[in-house]
Amino acid sequence: MTARRGRPPGGSQTRSRILASARRLFGERGFEGASVRAIAAEARVDPALIHHYFGTKHALYLAATELPFDPRAPQRLLEPGIEGLGERLVGFALDIWDRPDFAPVIAGIVRSAAADPAAAAQLREIVIRQVLTPLAAALGRPDAELRATLAGSQMIGLAFARLIVRVEPLASAERERIVRAVGPTIQRYLTGDLDD
Amino acid sequence: MTARRGRPPGGSQTRSRILASARRLFGERGFEGASVRAIAAEARVDPALIHHYFGTKHALYLAATELPFDPRAPQRLLEPGIEGLGERLVGFALDIWDRPDFAPVIAGIVRSAAADPAAAAQLREIVIRQVLTPLAAALGRPDAELRATLAGSQMIGLAFARLIVRVEPLASAERERIVRAVGPTIQRYLTGDLDD
Repeated sequence: MTARRGRPPGGSQTRSRILASARRLFGERGFEGASVRAIAAEARVDPALIHHYFGTKHALYLAATELPFDPRAPQRLLEPGIEGLGERLVGFALDIWDRPDFAPVIAGIVRSAAADPAAAAQLREIVIRQVLTPLAAALGRPDAELRATLAGSQMIGLAFARLIVRVEPLASAERERIVRAVGPTIQRYLTGDLDD
Repeated sequence: MTARRGRPPGGSQTRSRILASARRLFGERGFEGASVRAIAAEARVDPALIHHYFGTKHALYLAATELPFDPRAPQRLLEPGIEGLGERLVGFALDIWDRPDFAPVIAGIVRSAAADPAAAAQLREIVIRQVLTPLAAALGRPDAELRATLAGSQMIGLAFARLIVRVEPLASAERERIVRAVGPTIQRYLTGDLDD
């Protein structure tokens, strides 16, 4: 007798629907607040199917909050040269934040980091260790780690102001406006003289 | 017969001790998590005395999280002239944050703002409306509100990185180092060309 495994009903469309519901509910309610049952109800699937696809609730959380993040991004941001690097980096971040499916995920990660040390460590890992420190180190300027954390403080503050506190006019400002306003800050933190 | 009112036992020292306990517990547990009973126990006073001094729990919270904030601060920061304004503003903020009794209060306010729209409104009010917008408006440059919110995003991100996520080396960096690194960012947001 063959085990009842293999292709579950619906296939990859079902998986995407579960992920979209998980993003929305984890973003709104946090990890503890959003139950697998509620996510299943929102995605209109049986909770057992969530376990079939993702295993544990924690694995579902990791899959749902995984950013569409190309590991070669730091390299690609650097490729055109140092000039304009800060603006490219701000644009790169806004292109992720401005996706309606990811804005609540980013807000949820920052919100969780404010309350929970484990989530804060996850945020440090994503923003500082995977993106900004490699970038700062590749530039060969002294104090790469301080530079990366300064740039990180501006980017996280921007996410906080734009996605969570939603303070106007910053929250509704156009992408290009923010890129031109904040890009030079990041550029100076990564490449400039910090003691001037 | 005279009512049993007037000077309660201990006087202003007792009041200060209650405020210090309230700061610590509200900072650690938030408004909901810290009970009047726990604050009274920590301050070694009868809970009735807290009601005598402050009335409601909410009034106690407001008194405990009130920053030692001089309403003439924006004026005084501007007095020496535009040059160095950003550095003075960062130094002014760090002088409050670095007080051991206020660091947990600031962390608590930012943490609450991440979770609760009412706390987010309080943070907007303090940082943006009372300090940064008057400053930006006094400078007479266009887009005063956008400038104030950009500066606010950097200051809140700095508090987030330094007091909450505690990302190194930024969390332990010396006051003067941060003033020189972040001051020019604030200076440019408030007085510079945002479209360069």
